[in-house]
Amino acid sequence: MVTPESSTVLALAGGVGGAKLVFGLARCLPPGDLVICVNTGDDETFHGLHVSPDLDTMMYTLSGLSNQETGWGVAGDTFTALEMLGKFGVDTWFNLGDRDFATHIRRSQLLAEGKTLSEVILELNRSLGVFHSVIPMSNDPVKTVLSTDEGELPMQRYFVGRRAEPKVFEIRYVGVENATPAPGLLDSLAKCGMLVLCPSNPYLSLGPILALPGVRQLMRDFSGKKVCVSPIVGGDAVKGPAGKIMAELGKQVSCVEVAREYRDICDVFVMDNEDQDLVSEIEELGLTPLVTSIIMETEEDKIALAREILALAD
Amino acid sequence: MVTPESSTVLALAGGVGGAKLVFGLARCLPPGDLVICVNTGDDETFHGLHVSPDLDTMMYTLSGLSNQETGWGVAGDTFTALEMLGKFGVDTWFNLGDRDFATHIRRSQLLAEGKTLSEVILELNRSLGVFHSVIPMSNDPVKTVLSTDEGELPMQRYFVGRRAEPKVFEIRYVGVENATPAPGLLDSLAKCGMLVLCPSNPYLSLGPILALPGVRQLMRDFSGKKVCVSPIVGGDAVKGPAGKIMAELGKQVSCVEVAREYRDICDVFVMDNEDQDLVSEIEELGLTPLVTSIIMETEEDKIALAREILALAD
Repeated sequence: MVTPESSTVLALAGGVGGAKLVFGLARCLPPGDLVICVNTGDDETFHGLHVSPDLDTMMYTLSGLSNQETGWGVAGDTFTALEMLGKFGVDTWFNLGDRDFATHIRRSQLLAEGKTLSEVILELNRSLGVFHSVIPMSNDPVKTVLSTDEGELPMQRYFVGRRAEPKVFEIRYVGVENATPAPGLLDSLAKCGMLVLCPSNPYLSLGPILALPGVRQLMRDFSGKKVCVSPIVGGDAVKGPAGKIMAELGKQVSCVEVAREYRDICDVFVMDNEDQDLVSEIEELGLTPLVTSIIMETEEDKIALAREILALAD
Repeated sequence: MVTPESSTVLALAGGVGGAKLVFGLARCLPPGDLVICVNTGDDETFHGLHVSPDLDTMMYTLSGLSNQETGWGVAGDTFTALEMLGKFGVDTWFNLGDRDFATHIRRSQLLAEGKTLSEVILELNRSLGVFHSVIPMSNDPVKTVLSTDEGELPMQRYFVGRRAEPKVFEIRYVGVENATPAPGLLDSLAKCGMLVLCPSNPYLSLGPILALPGVRQLMRDFSGKKVCVSPIVGGDAVKGPAGKIMAELGKQVSCVEVAREYRDICDVFVMDNEDQDLVSEIEELGLTPLVTSIIMETEEDKIALAREILALAD
């Protein structure tokens, strides 16, 4: 029997890979039928401004402003303000363009006025014509910190500042035990008809969301279809350091390992044609494999994969 | 008898005209011999950032970064961040360039960290290679508000937002009675050998400084030479709305009126050749007129006028 909201989808996402699939989902679903919950474990304060890298990647992607070459920031952005900040003797290792600065200035202003991050993200997205619901995982601060051979590094310092080169021993989500999941996340877990774990880094992007108090249990209890798209294809991450980190943490670098991480919160595991030979291993974990092309290069790729996923609802 | 610090100069200044003369003074005096006290009655919060228009005009002028065509901002600045803020539905009537934004971002960050405006201005100026002492008139907020035929308008809203068009009835410096003069201002009034009132708007630029508790009396008691350079030449302001405001306040639009405003805190009144016929009126006020060319168009003009003023110390 189809419940009233069975056509609605909750997507969990982190950075670039997740945003690609969400772009496809947003092309297939009307705004009211898609909630996108985004990692905020990477949020940082730069130059006194609140920066939300994953939320902004999502906003820029959905509004058509994203720089698809770099994977971050706004296409065609300039770096005049950052250059001037450098003249003030400030460390400018984290690239922030002028348009991007406007986002951080506006977000920081609204937060200082007492709005929650949820309210701010809603307003910013609406202003840029994004009407699908983009929500932060929590309005409380959670900080992803990596224990590495160069010491403790917050996510952006590790990922951007040190180009993900240090060896990772452990990953912690500082503050997560005291963070309340965003209201929209709990609502969606109760009401949506499908849950999609986008192809994002399991430890750095989706890990913080899943570690929020009560969230993983609500996902286990989720009544609709649970779909996970692998961020790993043929022994490495499609993009980013997920594969490297998996190896450093002593895990198998394969989509099977991702399926193992998510086995309690996943019904259908979407994997690439290249990993066809691993189908039986996925099945052994009790998941239903869907083998297809999951490397999204063009807009058409993103929409096609989204369609295949949404078809699983029937 | 020459006191040890008789060669030191305290200059009071507001916007563009004042900055021109200070540029000349700074070319003639070593950093340790010049203190520049700048109006902060125009300071405003834009997009959650603390903006100090007169302090920045001074910093950009002394560092060689100023936009001499517009009289505000940084030469060759771009407006990418402001344009993006417009997309967020923000009112962007106050022009802020990308380089200028960096100044406001950095200032706001340092203020939020607990530094005083004096400390912040020192740091910003040093970073841009300005070693003469630029100080705000006070670290406490003072807000210049104009009562006009369009209601109460803060200075920037009147001057930039409404292009100084509304008719002015009264000018108030809100908060001035509770503001403490910056430490450097009081020190300099006690120790410097010369006081220079730069050619700035008497009501909007120097008025707030003179209204600080105790400052005018310290200026009356100032032991060194007191020099004022007229911002009015031949019946109008060299730049800006000073002449218009004087007329609206029922005053005579002439350098004589400026001399009258400052008669208790001025020994030598520097006026333009064009106003030669007003010399006797200045003398009648008890001031010594110095008639010369005070319209500073080139760097040479600025330095020449500064030299003439500094020669008065002997």
